[in-house]
Amino acid sequence: MTEVKNMKFETLTVELSSTGVLLVKFNRPDRLNAVNPQMWEDLKSCFTAIRTDGNVRSVVLAANGKVFCSGLDLKETKIISPGAYGDVARKGYYQRLAIIDLQDSISAIENCDKPVICAVQNACIGAGIDIITASDVRYCSEDAFFMVKEVDIGMAADVGTLQRLPKVVSNDSWVREICYTTRRIDSKEASEQGLISKVFPNSDTVLAEAIKTANIIASKSPVAIVSTKHLLNFSRDHTVEEGLKYTALWNALAHNTGDMKTAISSFFQKTQPKFSKL
Amino acid sequence: MTEVKNMKFETLTVELSSTGVLLVKFNRPDRLNAVNPQMWEDLKSCFTAIRTDGNVRSVVLAANGKVFCSGLDLKETKIISPGAYGDVARKGYYQRLAIIDLQDSISAIENCDKPVICAVQNACIGAGIDIITASDVRYCSEDAFFMVKEVDIGMAADVGTLQRLPKVVSNDSWVREICYTTRRIDSKEASEQGLISKVFPNSDTVLAEAIKTANIIASKSPVAIVSTKHLLNFSRDHTVEEGLKYTALWNALAHNTGDMKTAISSFFQKTQPKFSKL
Amino acid sequence: MTEVKNMKFETLTVELSSTGVLLVKFNRPDRLNAVNPQMWEDLKSCFTAIRTDGNVRSVVLAANGKVFCSGLDLKETKIISPGAYGDVARKGYYQRLAIIDLQDSISAIENCDKPVICAVQNACIGAGIDIITASDVRYCSEDAFFMVKEVDIGMAADVGTLQRLPKVVSNDSWVREICYTTRRIDSKEASEQGLISKVFPNSDTVLAEAIKTANIIASKSPVAIVSTKHLLNFSRDHTVEEGLKYTALWNALAHNTGDMKTAISSFFQKTQPKFSKL
Amino acid sequence: MTEVKNMKFETLTVELSSTGVLLVKFNRPDRLNAVNPQMWEDLKSCFTAIRTDGNVRSVVLAANGKVFCSGLDLKETKIISPGAYGDVARKGYYQRLAIIDLQDSISAIENCDKPVICAVQNACIGAGIDIITASDVRYCSEDAFFMVKEVDIGMAADVGTLQRLPKVVSNDSWVREICYTTRRIDSKEASEQGLISKVFPNSDTVLAEAIKTANIIASKSPVAIVSTKHLLNFSRDHTVEEGLKYTALWNALAHNTGDMKTAISSFFQKTQPKFSKL
Amino acid sequence: MTEVKNMKFETLTVELSSTGVLLVKFNRPDRLNAVNPQMWEDLKSCFTAIRTDGNVRSVVLAANGKVFCSGLDLKETKIISPGAYGDVARKGYYQRLAIIDLQDSISAIENCDKPVICAVQNACIGAGIDIITASDVRYCSEDAFFMVKEVDIGMAADVGTLQRLPKVVSNDSWVREICYTTRRIDSKEASEQGLISKVFPNSDTVLAEAIKTANIIASKSPVAIVSTKHLLNFSRDHTVEEGLKYTALWNALAHNTGDMKTAISSFFQKTQPKFSKL
Amino acid sequence: MTEVKNMKFETLTVELSSTGVLLVKFNRPDRLNAVNPQMWEDLKSCFTAIRTDGNVRSVVLAANGKVFCSGLDLKETKIISPGAYGDVARKGYYQRLAIIDLQDSISAIENCDKPVICAVQNACIGAGIDIITASDVRYCSEDAFFMVKEVDIGMAADVGTLQRLPKVVSNDSWVREICYTTRRIDSKEASEQGLISKVFPNSDTVLAEAIKTANIIASKSPVAIVSTKHLLNFSRDHTVEEGLKYTALWNALAHNTGDMKTAISSFFQKTQPKFSKL
Repeated sequence: MTEVKNMKFETLTVELSSTGVLLVKFNRPDRLNAVNPQMWEDLKSCFTAIRTDGNVRSVVLAANGKVFCSGLDLKETKIISPGAYGDVARKGYYQRLAIIDLQDSISAIENCDKPVICAVQNACIGAGIDIITASDVRYCSEDAFFMVKEVDIGMAADVGTLQRLPKVVSNDSWVREICYTTRRIDSKEASEQGLISKVFPNSDTVLAEAIKTANIIASKSPVAIVSTKHLLNFSRDHTVEEGLKYTALWNALAHNTGDMKTAISSFFQKTQPKFSKL
Repeated sequence: MTEVKNMKFETLTVELSSTGVLLVKFNRPDRLNAVNPQMWEDLKSCFTAIRTDGNVRSVVLAANGKVFCSGLDLKETKIISPGAYGDVARKGYYQRLAIIDLQDSISAIENCDKPVICAVQNACIGAGIDIITASDVRYCSEDAFFMVKEVDIGMAADVGTLQRLPKVVSNDSWVREICYTTRRIDSKEASEQGLISKVFPNSDTVLAEAIKTANIIASKSPVAIVSTKHLLNFSRDHTVEEGLKYTALWNALAHNTGDMKTAISSFFQKTQPKFSKL
Repeated sequence: MTEVKNMKFETLTVELSSTGVLLVKFNRPDRLNAVNPQMWEDLKSCFTAIRTDGNVRSVVLAANGKVFCSGLDLKETKIISPGAYGDVARKGYYQRLAIIDLQDSISAIENCDKPVICAVQNACIGAGIDIITASDVRYCSEDAFFMVKEVDIGMAADVGTLQRLPKVVSNDSWVREICYTTRRIDSKEASEQGLISKVFPNSDTVLAEAIKTANIIASKSPVAIVSTKHLLNFSRDHTVEEGLKYTALWNALAHNTGDMKTAISSFFQKTQPKFSKL
Repeated sequence: MTEVKNMKFETLTVELSSTGVLLVKFNRPDRLNAVNPQMWEDLKSCFTAIRTDGNVRSVVLAANGKVFCSGLDLKETKIISPGAYGDVARKGYYQRLAIIDLQDSISAIENCDKPVICAVQNACIGAGIDIITASDVRYCSEDAFFMVKEVDIGMAADVGTLQRLPKVVSNDSWVREICYTTRRIDSKEASEQGLISKVFPNSDTVLAEAIKTANIIASKSPVAIVSTKHLLNFSRDHTVEEGLKYTALWNALAHNTGDMKTAISSFFQKTQPKFSKL
Repeated sequence: MTEVKNMKFETLTVELSSTGVLLVKFNRPDRLNAVNPQMWEDLKSCFTAIRTDGNVRSVVLAANGKVFCSGLDLKETKIISPGAYGDVARKGYYQRLAIIDLQDSISAIENCDKPVICAVQNACIGAGIDIITASDVRYCSEDAFFMVKEVDIGMAADVGTLQRLPKVVSNDSWVREICYTTRRIDSKEASEQGLISKVFPNSDTVLAEAIKTANIIASKSPVAIVSTKHLLNFSRDHTVEEGLKYTALWNALAHNTGDMKTAISSFFQKTQPKFSKL
Repeated sequence: MTEVKNMKFETLTVELSSTGVLLVKFNRPDRLNAVNPQMWEDLKSCFTAIRTDGNVRSVVLAANGKVFCSGLDLKETKIISPGAYGDVARKGYYQRLAIIDLQDSISAIENCDKPVICAVQNACIGAGIDIITASDVRYCSEDAFFMVKEVDIGMAADVGTLQRLPKVVSNDSWVREICYTTRRIDSKEASEQGLISKVFPNSDTVLAEAIKTANIIASKSPVAIVSTKHLLNFSRDHTVEEGLKYTALWNALAHNTGDMKTAISSFFQKTQPKFSKL
């Protein structure tokens, strides 16, 4: 099992705090953190490794440079002609798999089981929306703005926005309007509509607060935390009854953790509990 | 394939702009746009035709007269006695099919694949709620008010409100309260709760703004727009993973549109792209 | 069929108004209404009986004492060692069933088919959240506060919060933050996020208003009311299309009620209809 | 409501017995009952009308001429070039709807709620397999043979075979082999594998026996029969638990039939009950 | 936790062997083991208790007297008139719950987690089919015969047959034919169609062989056995992928059993392993 | 994209015919082709590569040595103690992921989209059953025998057998009996029950016939073949209606293949069509 803190990524920086908070930052500032083929790969490797790295207890996802994420890097995204595959059906067969591959990069964030807090600053466009809606908690700075931009390049968003955005915010009329019109949403509107749960004055404060929340989470029982994230995700996609039954099975296993005893005795002794890594 | 602009409806008026925006208006002003048997039929014919009419790129749904929709026309709705069918079970067999038939009229709005913007003024009651929650975007005038009124005629809403209302707004406690109590909701409360995404001073301004939004949508790639609506609807009813897989297949087909090249080259050339009809 | 008003519970008080509103109150004030094994049993018996007691038309759920519910009673909750069962797998087999048993107590609230209005005052913690999110309408007093507290005892919430909380409020980022951090939410924040639909000055006023809403509901057709609750619950867990089809079948039966005629003729005669019990 | 016996179809003959058995026969014997565009339409109209025609209690589906059904009529099936639609994505948008339209013709057989007995003779190929697997009971003559032929025209079967064939027979290895290889299955193998439940010497005897079974069904309570078909179909597509819950609701309505009293008193009096039409 | 061997039932006899095989026998021989209201209750109590009685490792379900089960006891089944409930909708509300109650009696067999082997002799009719299809393994004597008889009392089977029969046998055409026609199936046909997996000469031999199979099962690891039954049931009602994921979680818990070490070391030492009760 | 024919596996041999049939053989004959950790890896790599290798049109899965597959290699499978992970909950967290990893190896066979024909000889035990039930077509030699063996090592099968076996054969009573008792099934019984679709005299003939079938499949349109496999798998796990809708979308893309024109013109010209690789 690879430790994430020792991994090197071309398009991401990673840094693990002593408390178990992993700070992941997009690192293509000169390209406004546009997502190129390498970044899709890096996101997948990084978050897949997070899942099984017990040293990581929570994650902050932020960006180097001014901009959070300017969307797909159109310059580096190659469009393949059907000719290369014989006919449109053959090309389509492979294209479907290629899209699933990109989707897996985004879903790796959701599936990593450790809570991910986004600290968004300035632009968050296209693929940026896919990324933040696959995360757990979304904070931003006042200068942040958001655009579901895919329609403007002649396509429907296909790596997560249309699936997750309506499930993380409240107002379906608003969701559809911004998806169809691609209009720019400022931080205030994003906050009012629940896309963002807290707005901070600038990029420094949003990052600091994201790390603060991440540290609180990292101080909790890792068994309780990964269970909570995993069960929230499972339950979103199942009926209440199925969610409950799966949870009962999950906890029949998870209740064998020593963390419960640690936590309860700390509670009665009013001390701060310490939990070993997952 | 019928062109909608040439269709005549007893209870609706239709008008297609040169930009591809279809304005559909309820046209029973003297009956406060109550939904009678003919209007159920007309809604189904109209929105079914919209689906396959490439000239229509987006739809505005509004009303002639003062009121948007006062609900079911109780005077024209006939209640059939079991005697006519031999016994309650036989009557029930046909009644189930009759309800499904009405539901199909409402669902036609959802299934037409072109975004539908509602411009609500004054009363929106009962069947009116079924209609606007099956639409994409909801705007209203300040004088608008809303009532989930079915309980007051001794029945549960059965053509869409109980399915869609909780999925288009945020606050389940509020949804249930208004469904059980049938109380009147004014435009301010409707907006705060997300049933309505924008409120405008009066019926003229709400219609003008709905048309404005519809025109923006009509200027986009029709392939991108119908794909986005279709995938939002599909994804609402499936797990994130199933939504993603279906989307990958859909776009493996949709990416064969010329609109992507048109859009991307316009983007780099900073021109306004023109897209042919669907 | 037992009449609920004649049942005695160790941990609950029940009182039926002449209008058919059942007031259920937690009754362990000295233990801050912590949920002990007896209370799990009592909740299940009480709400299961409500389902088939036609005299009950709506329910208000409140608390004796200062506090609404302080969560699981850790002192009375026994943790069983694997040794008692031979091994961890055997223990786990029975533990899964034990958790399902507790879940059934909470789900009984949802399944009782009569609307349940919560009147929350002061603390609503842990199991308290499970209870109010399984209810229909949530009101609270200004001094109310809320904590999803399970992570602090080393476990994921497992009797309903993780399934229902994200479905009753809007903002997924907020839901996840409060589940991971266990932080205290005051009545204002709870209201802004839609966990609570109305806040009242104090415990007296919140109870009075909950009873008022319950009385409005109790005055409606009981067939319409239980149908509406049942269909809202069914539809939450199914696709729109499946919800519609089930509703069509349900109403093909429910439309045989005399309440519709009563309601419609009252409507035309502008009188107040009276409906017999379910 | 149209009575089916009075409807005229270009490609089908229909004949209603005094006992309520409708005999539907393919009627393009000179084209070996190949399915042309008109036949898709006729199947849909015919079986949609059967659903609401209380005079029809059961259906026999057979063929005029030597052959049951030779599959899609390739001569009359037009293939549209993408050019007609602007691009492949646009064409695909309409083609998806066109396929769904054909699927609806086949599904009308399943959805008609009256049991359909097929009497297959000689060739049953391609679309013929779609048709018989959407029916309830399959009989054939000794000279019958079966081919899942679509792969041989370069496509996957898309109007029902791949969905229903694996659910009506037992042996998945056999199903896949015949779908991939398109090999010819004779009546003996079809019977051994359960595609056919009874084989008769020739086309006369298979038709006679199909009518005999249909007459037995027509003599039963129509409420019980349509309920049984409807619930078998619903349950095939749902979990056991969901199937049970839907059935409980269905029968809470259907038990209001007088047929139960008629049937039970006939049972005790050992007489032959008579049931009125649905 | 009640031990089943100490429970007394009016309509069932129970007997626990030293090996952990529970023999449950219908005990209304003078009424041909027709299912009366008491037997529904007894079946539910008995099989619910089996679930949590670690002494029971497998179950044989058989009958005292000549007949296995002659179906619903029509003499003791009361039909309630709508009048008693005010109207058909009110009656239907309670009737739905009453049917679900009966369904739960049958489903208790499926949910008891210990394998149930049926030893069928002579008649197995109506409710008898519901019972055996909710069991795991079906053996019968040569004189056994089977009838899905509900249609003959004017109703669709509603406590399990229509859900489970098509999932336990292969030939859908045959299933539908016997459900619609209610015709009598002898043991040979039942065996050929897979409703029965083995036929024995008479009632003594079928019981002896059922007990033999039950003893083999009782000698295996109880953790492995209940896991296998539970996972087969779960997987029947879910996609392959969902079944796999649930299984992974289940076994992450179940692998903590000592039975695996016991079994593997017995395997290498070629001894007969002994497993403690669940 | 790697070409499978150039890949080297420690535990498998692969060989591609000029016709596009890939022969994959288990290659641990001295260990009776028991599945060790390396073989799980190799299966995953091999079948994942098959999915995107257009040169492979169909697959035969067979074995070097006498035995097809003797199940899990118990000697090389390490059991990890909870100690290594801190506690049972932590160990369980990782064990669940480890089981999913093994499941993915088996599911790779199902997901490779090219039909897989198994040629089974002699023993097919435990993991061998998981493998063949994830394949498409199952042939065996007369000396073949089958055992669902997991219960005998104290566990429920967890990498596919309990999910897929009941869906590929017919007789649920038989499935459960063999899963609970672990008894040995010979080729005759396996064939009668539909686990195997054809039995051949010996290992040479079964391999020859498997290759023959694979060659027939390889001669068909690859678009039609992968579509058929993909849609059969999708449809198994969805309702008929969802299967149909997905199929309509799939074919709206796949119908753009040139193979249809090639196939149809060959049909009319009675020539043998040639299709280019996928």
